[in-house]
Amino acid sequence: MSSENGKGEQGQFASWFDANRARLLGELGELIRIPSVSALPAHRDDMARAAEWVAARLRAAGVPTVEVLPTSGHPVVLGEWPAADPDAPTALIYAHYDTQPADPFDEWETPPFEPSERDGRLYGRGASDDKGNLLIPVAVAEAFGQAQGGPPIGLTFLFEGEEEIGSPNLRPLLAAHRDRLRADVAISADSGMWSPEQPSLVLASKGLAGVQLDARGAAGDIHSGLHGGMAPNPLGALVTVLASMKDADGRITIDGFFDGVRPLTELERAEIAAIPFDAAGYGRSLGIAGPVGDPAFTPLERNWARPTFDLNGIWGGFQGAGSKTVIPAEAHAKITCRLVPDQDPGAVIAAIARHVALHTLPGVTIAVNPIAGSSRAYAIDPAHPALLAARDVMRAEYGRDPYMIRLGGTLPVAEFFKADLGLDTIFLAWEMPDENLHGPNEFFRLENFDRGFRVYSQLFNRLSSDD
Amino acid sequence: MSSENGKGEQGQFASWFDANRARLLGELGELIRIPSVSALPAHRDDMARAAEWVAARLRAAGVPTVEVLPTSGHPVVLGEWPAADPDAPTALIYAHYDTQPADPFDEWETPPFEPSERDGRLYGRGASDDKGNLLIPVAVAEAFGQAQGGPPIGLTFLFEGEEEIGSPNLRPLLAAHRDRLRADVAISADSGMWSPEQPSLVLASKGLAGVQLDARGAAGDIHSGLHGGMAPNPLGALVTVLASMKDADGRITIDGFFDGVRPLTELERAEIAAIPFDAAGYGRSLGIAGPVGDPAFTPLERNWARPTFDLNGIWGGFQGAGSKTVIPAEAHAKITCRLVPDQDPGAVIAAIARHVALHTLPGVTIAVNPIAGSSRAYAIDPAHPALLAARDVMRAEYGRDPYMIRLGGTLPVAEFFKADLGLDTIFLAWEMPDENLHGPNEFFRLENFDRGFRVYSQLFNRLSSDD
Repeated sequence: MSSENGKGEQGQFASWFDANRARLLGELGELIRIPSVSALPAHRDDMARAAEWVAARLRAAGVPTVEVLPTSGHPVVLGEWPAADPDAPTALIYAHYDTQPADPFDEWETPPFEPSERDGRLYGRGASDDKGNLLIPVAVAEAFGQAQGGPPIGLTFLFEGEEEIGSPNLRPLLAAHRDRLRADVAISADSGMWSPEQPSLVLASKGLAGVQLDARGAAGDIHSGLHGGMAPNPLGALVTVLASMKDADGRITIDGFFDGVRPLTELERAEIAAIPFDAAGYGRSLGIAGPVGDPAFTPLERNWARPTFDLNGIWGGFQGAGSKTVIPAEAHAKITCRLVPDQDPGAVIAAIARHVALHTLPGVTIAVNPIAGSSRAYAIDPAHPALLAARDVMRAEYGRDPYMIRLGGTLPVAEFFKADLGLDTIFLAWEMPDENLHGPNEFFRLENFDRGFRVYSQLFNRLSSDD
Repeated sequence: MSSENGKGEQGQFASWFDANRARLLGELGELIRIPSVSALPAHRDDMARAAEWVAARLRAAGVPTVEVLPTSGHPVVLGEWPAADPDAPTALIYAHYDTQPADPFDEWETPPFEPSERDGRLYGRGASDDKGNLLIPVAVAEAFGQAQGGPPIGLTFLFEGEEEIGSPNLRPLLAAHRDRLRADVAISADSGMWSPEQPSLVLASKGLAGVQLDARGAAGDIHSGLHGGMAPNPLGALVTVLASMKDADGRITIDGFFDGVRPLTELERAEIAAIPFDAAGYGRSLGIAGPVGDPAFTPLERNWARPTFDLNGIWGGFQGAGSKTVIPAEAHAKITCRLVPDQDPGAVIAAIARHVALHTLPGVTIAVNPIAGSSRAYAIDPAHPALLAARDVMRAEYGRDPYMIRLGGTLPVAEFFKADLGLDTIFLAWEMPDENLHGPNEFFRLENFDRGFRVYSQLFNRLSSDD
C-alpha cells in the first residue's frame, strides 16, 4: 500500500470514525457499566459478563474467530482475524478487560460504574485502564473490515481478565495456545504515555532477582548481660553484610553483580538526557530534598538503565515498646534487585551469596535464599522495524518525536511474550499519569480515543507496507 | 570482740544451729508452701500471706520492730534491730519473698509448692531463689538474740515481694523511708555463687544506655521499580549507620563512646585471668564455635569489664512471605549498651547521636531516641572494708579465696541502694548456677544453709569488730 493510498485511506478512515464516534463511545460506556473487578469474588459473574461483552464486540467488529477461553481464574478472550495476504505480518494485540476495585466509593464525584462525560473526559473505573484503550484497536479493525474487508495485517486479539491481579493464569494459557498465538510482534494496548502532548515508546524494562537473608547466631535468644562481648549477634552480622553491599555514594559493591552489564553508550545517554527530569519536583513529590544515588549516572539513567539494589524489609529481635536486653538468635532481610539486559538473575543471586559468605562475621551463619519471581530484563532492539514504524506514526500524529523511555520496573507481559512466544512488544496506549488509574475519579481523555484510532490505523498500514 | 571470743562464740553458734536446724528447715518448708508468685494476680492473697509469715518470722527471731509496708504492688517487710552499741555499724539486709511462676507444672518431679528433701537438697519453687537464702540472716539474728540479747551490729531487714517482676515499687519505698533505711552497708541475700566449692564476691555490674533509631526516607512506602536508583532507602541508611558502629573485630567505633573508661589495670586483668573460663564449653552451650569479640581482651574481660554494644531489635518494610518490591518509608532499630563505671549513660547516648548524624546517608533522617531505663554501672571499691571482711570470712569457711567477679548484666538493687541510700552492697547468698532457679525442679543445697549460717554470723562479728 503506497503512502498516497495511505493518505486516501486516512481520509476515508477519518470519515468513518466521525460517523461512528458516538456509537463507539456509547459502547465504551456499556463496557464501563459492567463492574469487572477481578480482585473481588463478588464480581465473578460480572467478569464473565464482561468477557462475553468483549467477545461479542469483537464479533460485531467482524473478527471471524472469537473464543472465550476459560482459565483457572477469569477467562481470556481470543479473537483471530488473519490477513488476506498470507505474506502480511501478524500482530498480537494485548489488553485487559478487568479493572481495579473502585473503593473508596465516596470519593468518586460520579459513581465509578456509571460513565460520565465532563470537559472531554470520560469518568469511570477502567475508562483509561484499560477499557478505553482496549476498544481502540477493535474499532480500527472494524473500520478496516468495513473499508476493505479486513485489516492489512493479521490481528490476534488477546484480552485477559486478570491483569490487575498479576496475570496468574496467563502463562499457562500462552503455553497451551502457542500455535494460535504465533505472530510477528506483540502490541500492548495497556500502557502509559509520557503526557498528553508528549508521546513516548518503551525501549526496556527491568528484570528482577530477590533473596532473603536468614542470619543465625546462638541456638536461642540470650541475655545481653550474661553474653554481651562474648556471643555473636546475628542482627549485627546482618547489618554489617547488608551495609557492605553498597558504598556511601550508593554504588553497589558486590563483586560480580555487574557481570554482563554493558556500559551505556553515548547514544543511550544522550537519548535519556533528552528527556526532561525535574529533580526538585521529584524531591517534593516524595518529601525529600531530591534524588539520591551513584553520582556517576543521572537519576533517570540509574532508574531506567542501571541495575538497582534495594532492601525491602528487615526484622529480628525485639520490636516492642521500651527496651529488652536480648541478643536475638536470628535476623532476616529481604532484598530485590532490578536488573538490566544481559544480567542473569541466577548469576546475580550467586554473586550475592558469595558476597555474604565473604562478609559474614564470626559466630553467625547467614543463609541466602532466593525468592521466587526472578525474571530477566526486557528490551526491544531500538532498530526493531515495528518500533521504528510506531515512532514514525507517532511523530506524524504529534508533530514531535516520541521520548524513547525505559522503565525502572518490570513489564510482565513483555517478558511473558518474549519468553513464551518469542515476541517483542510495542507498548501503545494512552493512560496518562494524571488519570487516577487505580484511584477514585479515573478518567480517559476522549481526544486520545481519536488519536489512538488514527495511530493504530496508520501503524497497521505501516506494518503492512513494511512487509 | 576479739578473735578468741569470736571462736568461742562460733562454738556456741554451732551448737545452737545444730539444735535448731530441723526447726529452721521446717520453717523454710512452711514458707515454700505459700505460693508467693508475684507475677500472677491469682496469688495476690498468697503474697499478702507470705509477707505476714515473713514479718511473724522476724518477730519470732526477736526483731523488735517489724512492719508490713504496703506499696502500689506487693508489700515490703521491714524489720529493725538496732545494735546495743550505738557506735556499731548497721547493715541493710535485702532479700525477696516472692518467686517465679512454677509452670510448666508437669515437669516437676514433686509439686513445686510441696517442699521435698532428697539427697541433701530441698526441692520447691523459691527454695534457693530466694526463700532459703532469705532465712539465713534471719536465723543468724535469732541466734545472736538468744546468745547475747541481740546482733553485734544493727540489722535492718528489707524483704520485698516484687523482685521477680522488676521491683517496680521499691525505689519509691526507699525514698519514702530513707531515714529508717540509713545504714553503713547493704548485704543482699539474693545472689549467685560461682559453684558449690568455689565462693565468689561481686565487684561490679554494668550500667545501661538504650536508644531507638527511627529512620525515615520518602513520605510513604514507594515502588522500587518507579523509584529504584533515585529514592533514598531508610533501611539501607539504617544498616549502614548501624554497621559503622563496630568494626569487623567487634570493636565499638563510636567516637566518644569510651570517654571516661579507665584502662583495665594489670591487677584487674590478673584477677579476671585467675578465674577459669571454658571457651569450648561456652560455645557448646550456645551452639556456636566459641566466644567472639574484640581480640584485645579476653571473653570475661569483655563481658565483665568492658562496655558492650548490642542490637536488640530491628524492623522495617516487608516481613511476609515472598517478595514485595517496596522501598519502605521508615525503619527502626533498638540498641542497648552495657556500661562500665565512669561512663555516663547520657554521654554515651550523645556520642551515639553524634555518630548517627555523621554517618546518615543523604535523603534519610535518623532520629536517636533514648529509651527509658538508663543507669550507671555499679562497682564497689575492692578495698571496701565490708567486702574485705566478707572475703576473709569466705576464705576461712571454704579454705580458698573467693573469686572476685564482675557481672555483664545489671544488679538493680545495688544501683538503687547506691543512688537512693548512698550504700554499697555486698552480695552474699548461695544460689547455684545449676539449681534451676526459674525453671522446674528448683532446689537448694542444704549444706549451704549451714554454710550460710556460719558465714553470716562470722561476717556480722567481723563487721562489729572492724568498727
